[in-house]
Amino acid sequence: MKSFAKVCCATLALVTSLSTFTSYGADTKWRSLDLDNTVLMTLPHGKAVIELAPEFAPKHVAQFKKLVAEGFYTDNKFYRVIDGFVAQAGPPQSVVTRDQLGMEGEIDADKNWSFTKVQDNDLFAQQTGFKNGFAVAYNPSEEAAWLTHCPGVIAMARGNRPSSASSHFYFTIGQAPRYLDRIMSIFGRVVYGMENIQSIQRTQVVEGDKRVYPDQHTPIVAMQLMSDVPEKDRIVIEVEATQGKAFNERMEKRRKRDSAFFYKKPPPILDVCQVPIKSRMVKK
Amino acid sequence: MKSFAKVCCATLALVTSLSTFTSYGADTKWRSLDLDNTVLMTLPHGKAVIELAPEFAPKHVAQFKKLVAEGFYTDNKFYRVIDGFVAQAGPPQSVVTRDQLGMEGEIDADKNWSFTKVQDNDLFAQQTGFKNGFAVAYNPSEEAAWLTHCPGVIAMARGNRPSSASSHFYFTIGQAPRYLDRIMSIFGRVVYGMENIQSIQRTQVVEGDKRVYPDQHTPIVAMQLMSDVPEKDRIVIEVEATQGKAFNERMEKRRKRDSAFFYKKPPPILDVCQVPIKSRMVKK
Repeated sequence: MKSFAKVCCATLALVTSLSTFTSYGADTKWRSLDLDNTVLMTLPHGKAVIELAPEFAPKHVAQFKKLVAEGFYTDNKFYRVIDGFVAQAGPPQSVVTRDQLGMEGEIDADKNWSFTKVQDNDLFAQQTGFKNGFAVAYNPSEEAAWLTHCPGVIAMARGNRPSSASSHFYFTIGQAPRYLDRIMSIFGRVVYGMENIQSIQRTQVVEGDKRVYPDQHTPIVAMQLMSDVPEKDRIVIEVEATQGKAFNERMEKRRKRDSAFFYKKPPPILDVCQVPIKSRMVKK
Repeated sequence: MKSFAKVCCATLALVTSLSTFTSYGADTKWRSLDLDNTVLMTLPHGKAVIELAPEFAPKHVAQFKKLVAEGFYTDNKFYRVIDGFVAQAGPPQSVVTRDQLGMEGEIDADKNWSFTKVQDNDLFAQQTGFKNGFAVAYNPSEEAAWLTHCPGVIAMARGNRPSSASSHFYFTIGQAPRYLDRIMSIFGRVVYGMENIQSIQRTQVVEGDKRVYPDQHTPIVAMQLMSDVPEKDRIVIEVEATQGKAFNERMEKRRKRDSAFFYKKPPPILDVCQVPIKSRMVKK
């Protein structure tokens, strides 16, 4: 019979060994979010905070902020939620749409464009890395950079026409659907409360299972620009700076996997969508 | 002002265009699961069904089945749940461990080993594809194949010693941590109810947030071999056959993205962890 100590230690070891995921290096550099560029989404079961990305999708950010400020999304439902894929919300079909927006799936990025590279040649891009906490891809040969469809991004839904997006949006909730990169306009990412987005009621069930009816769909209780939220109710988040020495060192450590837990070394690869970027709450 | 019809159609188009995810080809071939190789996990908020993989991890499957049959996991808690990573459960530290198991992170797979290839040279393997619904990787040069850490697999936790796994297990709940491939023993995958696993209470919060206490951890209400579940309570699942013409055609269609929605074609790439394998419920 194995001893108590062994169980205990085995368990603790796993916790410790994988803790690069959660370690807060004393030298982590933090960046405050602009409250006017941050959205608080309240769901019946919890809240989430979204940082917007005007550098990548200025028109989408401007329109989303305008709609949020108007209260446009209040009581909208997550009407299309597919486990492992997306949670999509928007107004009922009776609501007239707003301005349709041109695609913002990528930006021009010449040799002077800077980001923190973590990987060459992933399946979908020449280079991947981070820009201000956002997972990005960069093809120098095309002078193009874009936000990648990692779990937790927010993007506008659209029809077949590239510039048909207006208000319906989705969060990615499963393995990154990178095949949507560059043909959808990602305009932000969840920096707090992703577990609440993961808990949104799925609307699509497997064949043979009980149907989920519209009155079961998760509603948006409120969606507000953080700067419009009364100070006492704000969730103030800081995110890890993704440039500089501390971050680069953390990435190298993560790539090398040199703890004893890795008794065989995995390939020294970083999947940009599997590199957690740290957030912290400054005030509750 | 845009018309109602346009909103409506734009929304529907997105639903339609991405529907390869959910389309049920008339010619899909289905495979019944062996009830004696299937586990029903009951959580307070819902159920999940796990198919075990004795071909890849026979010792782990045998031990897990034994523990499940004993009721070992009843009232165990998910005590380590990290959003985007893993949901890990196991007995309290006061419970003595069971037999520790040798690693089953990969199997010998010579040239005669067969699977359905979907991709060459992903970031972590020479080839990836499917074997009986399980996402697998295969390095012919090493004559080794393994189950990949796609979202929804179940694997045994362990300490630093490779053969220290015994009863604690985890589900992957975020972007595939493929760096754990071959150094952890995956022994099954969720074939139904993944949304309930995604909704397990996270135990780790960001710095500055309210702590989650052990009495808030999600318990396992019951874990049973499906063959031990009274017939009226069984969830009988069939999964898509991942070999044969119908599956190959679906993969090619998915790779080519030839619907009008893809106004620019993404790279003709399939990430094995982003290819949903269909399940259906035969009887409720």
